[in-house]
Amino acid sequence: MEDTHYMKLALAEAHKAAERGEVPVGAVIVCKDRIIARAHNLTETLTDVTAHAEMQAITAAASTLGGKYLNECTLYVTVEPCVMCAGAIAWAQMGKLVFGAEDEKRGYQRYASQALHPKTTVVKGVLAEECAVLMKDFFVAKRR
Amino acid sequence: MEDTHYMKLALAEAHKAAERGEVPVGAVIVCKDRIIARAHNLTETLTDVTAHAEMQAITAAASTLGGKYLNECTLYVTVEPCVMCAGAIAWAQMGKLVFGAEDEKRGYQRYASQALHPKTTVVKGVLAEECAVLMKDFFVAKRR
Repeated sequence: MEDTHYMKLALAEAHKAAERGEVPVGAVIVCKDRIIARAHNLTETLTDVTAHAEMQAITAAASTLGGKYLNECTLYVTVEPCVMCAGAIAWAQMGKLVFGAEDEKRGYQRYASQALHPKTTVVKGVLAEECAVLMKDFFVAKRR
Repeated sequence: MEDTHYMKLALAEAHKAAERGEVPVGAVIVCKDRIIARAHNLTETLTDVTAHAEMQAITAAASTLGGKYLNECTLYVTVEPCVMCAGAIAWAQMGKLVFGAEDEKRGYQRYASQALHPKTTVVKGVLAEECAVLMKDFFVAKRR
C-alpha cells in the first residue's frame, strides 16, 4: 500500500516530464515517511545525459539530509534504473529501491545485475502497467 | 603522445582533488584538439555521490557544445570509470575513452563490461603508474 502510494507520486513526476517532451520517468525519495526529493527526467531541457530523474533525486536527497549516504531512504522510480543510475544508487547505499516497469533495453539488470549495493532491498513491478503505458504512449507519439 | 599530454592534464586535476581531501580522480574532455571540460572528484565537498570527475566533465562538455552527444570527443580520466560513470559515458555516446589506472574493485569492467556504447574506442593504461600511485598514496595517508 505504502509502495503504491509513493509510486503514484513518482508517476505524477513522470507525467510532468512527458508534458515537457522528456522521456517520462519520475522519481521520489522517502526517508522515515517523509518525502525528501521529487524529480523527473530533464535530459533534453538541460542538454545533459546525466539529468535522469534518479540522479537528480539522489543529489537533492543528500543535500536535504546533509549526508551522502541514503541507507535509511527508499527510492521510488517509475522505470527500472539504467546502468548509470544503478551505479549512483549503489554509491548512495540506498536502503530500498522500488521500481515500476522493467526496461529490457537499457535497464541495469541486463548489463550490470550486480551493480547495486548488496544491502539494497529491491521491489519490482509496483504500478508497472501504468508506468509502462506512459513510456509506450510517449514513444508512439514521438514516432508520429 | 597526444594521449599522454592530455592525461597529464587529467592528473593535474586529480592532484587538485587530493589537495581538497577528495579521492584523487581527474578528467579532461577534448573535442577537435580543444579542451572543453576539466573536472575533479568533488563527492565530499558537494556531499553528492554523483559528483565524480567524469560526470561533471560530461555535463560541462555538453553545456559547452550545446548538445548532449559527445561522439566527437575524447574523455581522459586518471582511473577506470565506475559503473555510474560508464553508464553516463554510454549515454553521451563518447567517441573515445582513455583511462590511466585500472580499478579492480569499483571499475566498470568488473560489473558492467558491456555498459559502454559499442562505438566508443577504449584506450587503457596511459600513465597508469602515476595515476595509481596518486590513489594509493591518498588511501595510505587516510588510514594513518
